[in-house]
Amino acid sequence: MVDYSTGLEPGPANHQPLTPLLFLERAAAVHPDRLAVVHGALRMNYRALRDRCVCLASALTLHGIGRGDTVAALLPNIPAMLECHYGVPMAGAVLNTINTRLDAATIAYILDHGEARAIVVDREFMPVLRLALAQCKVKPLVVEVDDPLAPEAARGETLGGLSYEALLAEGDPAFAWPMPADEWDAITLNYTSGTTGRPKGVVYHHRGAQLLATGNVLSAGMARHPVYLWTLPMFHCNGWCFPWTVCAVAGTHVCLRAVRGPTIWALMAEHGVTHMCGAPIVMATMLATPEAEKRVLHHQVQFVVAGAPPPETVLAAMREAGFAVCHVYGLTECYGPSVVNEWHQDWNAKPAPEQAALMARQGVRYLALEALDVLDPATLRPVPADGATMGEVMMRGNVVMKGYLKDRAVTEAAFAGGWFHTGDLAVKHPDGYVQLKDRSKDIIISGGENISSIEVEDALYRHPAVAVAAVVAKPDEKWGEAPLAFIELKPGASVTEAELIAFAKQHLAGYKVPRAIVFAEIPKTSTGKIQKHVLRAEARGA
Amino acid sequence: MVDYSTGLEPGPANHQPLTPLLFLERAAAVHPDRLAVVHGALRMNYRALRDRCVCLASALTLHGIGRGDTVAALLPNIPAMLECHYGVPMAGAVLNTINTRLDAATIAYILDHGEARAIVVDREFMPVLRLALAQCKVKPLVVEVDDPLAPEAARGETLGGLSYEALLAEGDPAFAWPMPADEWDAITLNYTSGTTGRPKGVVYHHRGAQLLATGNVLSAGMARHPVYLWTLPMFHCNGWCFPWTVCAVAGTHVCLRAVRGPTIWALMAEHGVTHMCGAPIVMATMLATPEAEKRVLHHQVQFVVAGAPPPETVLAAMREAGFAVCHVYGLTECYGPSVVNEWHQDWNAKPAPEQAALMARQGVRYLALEALDVLDPATLRPVPADGATMGEVMMRGNVVMKGYLKDRAVTEAAFAGGWFHTGDLAVKHPDGYVQLKDRSKDIIISGGENISSIEVEDALYRHPAVAVAAVVAKPDEKWGEAPLAFIELKPGASVTEAELIAFAKQHLAGYKVPRAIVFAEIPKTSTGKIQKHVLRAEARGA
Repeated sequence: MVDYSTGLEPGPANHQPLTPLLFLERAAAVHPDRLAVVHGALRMNYRALRDRCVCLASALTLHGIGRGDTVAALLPNIPAMLECHYGVPMAGAVLNTINTRLDAATIAYILDHGEARAIVVDREFMPVLRLALAQCKVKPLVVEVDDPLAPEAARGETLGGLSYEALLAEGDPAFAWPMPADEWDAITLNYTSGTTGRPKGVVYHHRGAQLLATGNVLSAGMARHPVYLWTLPMFHCNGWCFPWTVCAVAGTHVCLRAVRGPTIWALMAEHGVTHMCGAPIVMATMLATPEAEKRVLHHQVQFVVAGAPPPETVLAAMREAGFAVCHVYGLTECYGPSVVNEWHQDWNAKPAPEQAALMARQGVRYLALEALDVLDPATLRPVPADGATMGEVMMRGNVVMKGYLKDRAVTEAAFAGGWFHTGDLAVKHPDGYVQLKDRSKDIIISGGENISSIEVEDALYRHPAVAVAAVVAKPDEKWGEAPLAFIELKPGASVTEAELIAFAKQHLAGYKVPRAIVFAEIPKTSTGKIQKHVLRAEARGA
Repeated sequence: MVDYSTGLEPGPANHQPLTPLLFLERAAAVHPDRLAVVHGALRMNYRALRDRCVCLASALTLHGIGRGDTVAALLPNIPAMLECHYGVPMAGAVLNTINTRLDAATIAYILDHGEARAIVVDREFMPVLRLALAQCKVKPLVVEVDDPLAPEAARGETLGGLSYEALLAEGDPAFAWPMPADEWDAITLNYTSGTTGRPKGVVYHHRGAQLLATGNVLSAGMARHPVYLWTLPMFHCNGWCFPWTVCAVAGTHVCLRAVRGPTIWALMAEHGVTHMCGAPIVMATMLATPEAEKRVLHHQVQFVVAGAPPPETVLAAMREAGFAVCHVYGLTECYGPSVVNEWHQDWNAKPAPEQAALMARQGVRYLALEALDVLDPATLRPVPADGATMGEVMMRGNVVMKGYLKDRAVTEAAFAGGWFHTGDLAVKHPDGYVQLKDRSKDIIISGGENISSIEVEDALYRHPAVAVAAVVAKPDEKWGEAPLAFIELKPGASVTEAELIAFAKQHLAGYKVPRAIVFAEIPKTSTGKIQKHVLRAEARGA
């Protein structure tokens, strides 16, 4: 045995923390004049984007915000949101992007739990933030973004905070931002609905963000200089790490405040978009655009879809419109996508229904994920690759989160036995491709966002007339899934469907409110456990 | 400050050693039936390649070879060489690929220095290995590869060792090969000529190999399933990590025993080659192929060139033949290429001479290299980016070697001040692109291989008639550079050019022998230091 260690230790010359932050520095150094950001009439090159991000880092530092501090963002897909993905961690701080559709109480909970020192907010979301700030304990520095494309109704909104542009003006583009002390340092914090109503704070680190971001290049087959349209919310798993991916290959970020069909088509045609991501609802929105507002695409566009497999008819229509569809799967806990339905070239010769069935499978591990398997959750032994035996999808690798913030017990449970337990039930096909079959956790995915059925049930249970509440996913043509509530009333009590929905709206973000209520006796096991699979079957048929 | 550490420690679920070995496992799992290797009439799919590599690992383990043991390889670019890049580290061992053009004494030195436990050898190189084994102290297990494409003259060669196929037959494809204990573990050992005659053992680790291998995908713009022709020796910096790169994207390795123009063109046409690498001499060889043996290419081929910038005429001829040329730069110490002449699309509009001048620059850092700069070696301050001020090229990052084996002092000197000192002198242009101007180390690059001028001088000095020997690079149309010797004879002594060249051949590998000798008084400084720059100028004009 040769001594391959002594005198061969890591040092600054041969070991640096992996971080996606250097992607921007490289793009700015090598391609300073390339178009980095498009937003309405705004055009920003890489030199300018880099300088603005470093100014943000510098200014945050001047405000005493640094290593291990949390900076929240309540922003749509506008340049400030992209800048936060670099500027906040360049200050050593941790970016907490918040789902802009959340209700004030949940936002307040997140701000408190993450101990936000600052929050960057768009005018459109100032009303909900005002309510949240009135409820939370932390008093973050409020930084207000005045986006010219914000809705007219939001004009004039202010929380009396600091203007984002004024903050940047305090910064110095020559600021020598500190590299992370360790690649295991936190870079972002993403709250996700879990099995309980309280969102969990998923912590990402620099190493994982770098690896998933470059992994996207390999999986999405991105050549240099892609033109990326921001149909996927950046608040969702940091936009699957694409804020970093696009800069790694010096591409152009085409911003998009809201997912609207005509705008999407217009931006695609104007800027020669090559790549975009989103839930199937984005496809549905695009396909539902009036013909007059659609555009003919002169090159193939890669659409990376997740959240649910695209239905056969949608797939066919997308292909006809010039898209190559790539189906990926993941969870907030694995930086967004870490599983890809890697398409075999010879599958293109198969009949359309067979192609759709192949495409419906979640697939195989990203190159950046070291292991993916379907295991018996009790024994942690792999299920047979027979396409029939159910098990739990488990992952292991460098693109699995650091863990849940301030929740060691839940983190340990999630990582029990050295595997990340996704909670998703699946089968493994003979070719090793994984396909989800059911969810062991009670999650409804609506418009690409997770909704905890238990959170919805909790809200319904607050109504005095409700005895038992059970919420399941109902297939929804537009949103993929929508919450459907089954209710047993208390004896003698009464409430109408409309009244109960109105009640739920007071306690839940709009997208979490049940679309419909079924008043009925709820099937239970002999031990009193609600038989959700019976309700789900009913919801599918309803 | 939020506690982003407690309860968020790394464990097996969220932290795995980075290693390129999993690339093969993934390709075999996802694309088992895809063509992995072409060699003569041989066709091997990914399932078979993976099984053979794991069998090699398993068999080596059965022979008691494991973690930290060195396994040498003296092989051309044949399947066994590719298999060693996976099978040897899958046994936990370190692969030491040896330049097949080296002389026996140097091979013996390398085997002893690296403490080789085994050596895998092709019949063609058994004669030189026989001589080496007679000189070295170690007694490695000799594993003999019987390649059907080996030269007729080598048929029947044997060292009485174990047959490679017999060794593989001992192995078990179900062997659970051990992951590296740490991504900092050594994966390969590459000897390079340095400023002294003794080669230095450059140690690579799994982390760097993984990052450079994926970095190649980004830099070479590789989509999935490239067809890669092995014009670059795998013994040279592990073929710039392409044995791993190609498997990362489930491509096809087209093997090539020897760089011969007609064979190259035929393989390109037959297999639809998309990518190849090499020194400019490979280009020259291809272009010099008789027209009748050239083929028309039906798609663009990416040629990644290093060692010297391609001359304008060669560049033009390559483009006309259907190649896109990418110029990279690196050293053995940085896993091969870590700097790339990243081409700007708008440069295509410039006149040909200007394009050639732009292409001649070494360029900018790979995405996988964290820092590249031209520094004043005394102060470690960056030189101005004026295209004129000389400094030393320095690098810092994860694709810089672990260090030199058993040579802490030289390693520390190479990493002084937290930078890897390349020894190459360069300027930095206003756009940040680096361009080599001279070499501070006395290295001649001939056919892509480093030759230490001092080693050549040492050999010449052994001749009793030689008083002073000074060897410099002479531009060579075929090899890029070739050694040219300037000799001062001892008073009264005499030797002819032919005699001295014949003498040198006894002490040096053939490619290191001076092509010509100039007998003359050698210019020296007042302190007696040989003025090599004067000799180089003369060599350029000679």
